[in-house]
Amino acid sequence: MVLNYASRLFWKRSLIDKKIKNSHALMLANGFFYQTCKGQFAFLPLGQRVLDKLSLLIEAELNNIGGQKCSLPSMAPASLWKRTGRWQEYGSIMFKLKDRERTEFCLQPTAEEMMTDIVANYGTITPGALPLLLYQTTEKYRNEERPEFGSIRCSQFLMNDLYSFDVDKATASETYGVISAVYKRILFNRLGLNETRMVEADNGDMGGDVSHEYHLPNVAAQDHIGVCNTCGSSRLWGPDVTCEPCNTVMQKMPTIEIGHTFMLGTRYTEAFGAKDEGGVPYFMNCFGLGVTRLLGASIDLLSSATIMRLPEALSVFKVAIILPKPISTSSASLDFAYSIMNDLDDFEHLKDDILIEDRTQKSVGQRLTHLNQLGIPHIFVVQAKKSYKPHDTIRIEYFRTEPRSFELIDCGILNHSQMFDVLRNIDRK
Amino acid sequence: MVLNYASRLFWKRSLIDKKIKNSHALMLANGFFYQTCKGQFAFLPLGQRVLDKLSLLIEAELNNIGGQKCSLPSMAPASLWKRTGRWQEYGSIMFKLKDRERTEFCLQPTAEEMMTDIVANYGTITPGALPLLLYQTTEKYRNEERPEFGSIRCSQFLMNDLYSFDVDKATASETYGVISAVYKRILFNRLGLNETRMVEADNGDMGGDVSHEYHLPNVAAQDHIGVCNTCGSSRLWGPDVTCEPCNTVMQKMPTIEIGHTFMLGTRYTEAFGAKDEGGVPYFMNCFGLGVTRLLGASIDLLSSATIMRLPEALSVFKVAIILPKPISTSSASLDFAYSIMNDLDDFEHLKDDILIEDRTQKSVGQRLTHLNQLGIPHIFVVQAKKSYKPHDTIRIEYFRTEPRSFELIDCGILNHSQMFDVLRNIDRK
Repeated sequence: MVLNYASRLFWKRSLIDKKIKNSHALMLANGFFYQTCKGQFAFLPLGQRVLDKLSLLIEAELNNIGGQKCSLPSMAPASLWKRTGRWQEYGSIMFKLKDRERTEFCLQPTAEEMMTDIVANYGTITPGALPLLLYQTTEKYRNEERPEFGSIRCSQFLMNDLYSFDVDKATASETYGVISAVYKRILFNRLGLNETRMVEADNGDMGGDVSHEYHLPNVAAQDHIGVCNTCGSSRLWGPDVTCEPCNTVMQKMPTIEIGHTFMLGTRYTEAFGAKDEGGVPYFMNCFGLGVTRLLGASIDLLSSATIMRLPEALSVFKVAIILPKPISTSSASLDFAYSIMNDLDDFEHLKDDILIEDRTQKSVGQRLTHLNQLGIPHIFVVQAKKSYKPHDTIRIEYFRTEPRSFELIDCGILNHSQMFDVLRNIDRK
Repeated sequence: MVLNYASRLFWKRSLIDKKIKNSHALMLANGFFYQTCKGQFAFLPLGQRVLDKLSLLIEAELNNIGGQKCSLPSMAPASLWKRTGRWQEYGSIMFKLKDRERTEFCLQPTAEEMMTDIVANYGTITPGALPLLLYQTTEKYRNEERPEFGSIRCSQFLMNDLYSFDVDKATASETYGVISAVYKRILFNRLGLNETRMVEADNGDMGGDVSHEYHLPNVAAQDHIGVCNTCGSSRLWGPDVTCEPCNTVMQKMPTIEIGHTFMLGTRYTEAFGAKDEGGVPYFMNCFGLGVTRLLGASIDLLSSATIMRLPEALSVFKVAIILPKPISTSSASLDFAYSIMNDLDDFEHLKDDILIEDRTQKSVGQRLTHLNQLGIPHIFVVQAKKSYKPHDTIRIEYFRTEPRSFELIDCGILNHSQMFDVLRNIDRK
């Protein structure tokens, strides 16, 4: 159990910059990240905690269905991308560079070419190992014309990309269904982002013939979908705004794309010769979740202009314990608070997810406000008292915060054992 | 609990390529990684498991002493590196590229400039938060003239780099001692690499006046240290080969550098204005462990030419259970094996670290050989038997492998409950 002390953290709460929008402003003000140049951000300790939680949550779900984690180099030789024609198709959206032998490389925005080449050269895959599901959570790069909105549109971003290889179109279609179900499980069940819309999309540069985008409502970004208020169906926004079955005009909803899935067919496997034992190219799908973008879009969706909210599974810390100001040098409350901390080792399921708010030079109110602004779900305030008699009850105020709700929720006064009951039951799985 | 099935894994065991040396050959033959171009490797599922374990092990140790994790972009604007003069000093060893506005960037080989700039611009750090220990485990890049030896010398590699900021030289020196102790704990205690040598080093391009390198014996790489066989002291190899106190000639030992630590003084903090409230520049140290290199060097040290061994904390899987060939369609042994698997959920401490070797088309001997070659520390073979009567004892052969020892260690025959006792006691912490 690692306890995190507020007094030791590299964090801050600065004023919201009103020229900057939503998650970008909130993440800057709360010290989640630092802008190193246009479109690039260094994740700082609080933001990194959340980013790691999101990456691990996605990876755990992919592991559960047999996904196998890899990590491919950022750099890819031009020759690899030329084999599918995408060196030209992607053009100036890719960063390009040369090594000392003047070999040309790109910084990869996606990895269909490289992953397919690996599978093609790896040797025979036994039929029992299919569908093969290979994924990575790695930095991707786009030489964006207009990077903006913080982690929403960056030139370097974290993406989880999964590539599946199947023996034929029918099983590839089944696999597509399985991964799509996992995406929904991640977005709806694990993250509680019930506004997620899956819409049919164009395969574009990627190739193949079936594709879906995942969108979250977002007023800052520039995507749009059409939503039918009668049947609830949605699709990408376009010139035709009629919902045929309902004969109604669709409503235009501003959104941000946070995931994209493709049935690619054999475009890549043919190009690289990724074939089964009988010489038939594998049927390939690919699936991408923008991890940094999903983080920004979740904050946009769940927060107010000044109060940050995250999906509960991603909260910076699950629990904060506010220590009282020392009233005297032998403050019984502080002694008590430290005795609580000694017992926290029993809560292994909260691992390093407990923040000790020990900045006693600040008032309890200031610290509560800050923790509310950060969206810590469980906050305990150890009440100050000059001295306790042996059988005095120690009083602990319990507050909660919840996504989409911006006031602190007062959950009343607890005693020691009630507080420990709450801790014991947080988020067991 | 995620069970890993051998029949589903993207792995292989190919012949050792005798033109390639040691860890490079072993990691290729065991499907740890795939070479995408000169000096660059894609980590595949088995290698990725080990790499993730090593990264997490290092991070856990750094978190224990108050290290705070960040992740900085790979790209840094030239302007940042020019402020310390290192844009020129590093020269052609850095990959360089331009964005669409013709702004020049490097792919960072290290991050003193960027981390110091962040600290300088972040706002006041309260004295109670010092020493500030910020680290990251991220990809680094070197435009190597001669990339070689697999993960030992790559142009893209994973590095854990920590930067400390202190209020004065005395506390910076204490912090240097604390992190150095953690490095030793990682290398000696956690990884069991007792051959590690810490030697005084030159600060070189980095600046500052105290520096140490960590070396492991390695016959392939080109580093050397001198070791005194009398007093055991060691230092970088140079023209003077005498150990003064012992008046003996030092022995030349071929090694590979796997870590480097520096007391940097105020070179960077002055350049970027990272100052305390009184306007005094922080005293800075930096510490780097080459994660991918350490992995390769550990394998070099612990393995034979054909049998891979890893530090036990990094083993690909902690446990493998070899299922018997189905003798008949209603094989009692197989039923029993599956019943064991249902009970494995009780071993939460083994999380996803159990491999079920279900490739029953291969003989038990072939599979044992493969698992020995991979260095799985605990191997259980469920014996085949056509049918069991209700009170028959199920027999399980138990084998171990250990670092620096290349034969399977036969630990005898266990019954069901003895096997579970072994599982229960593996690596509890």
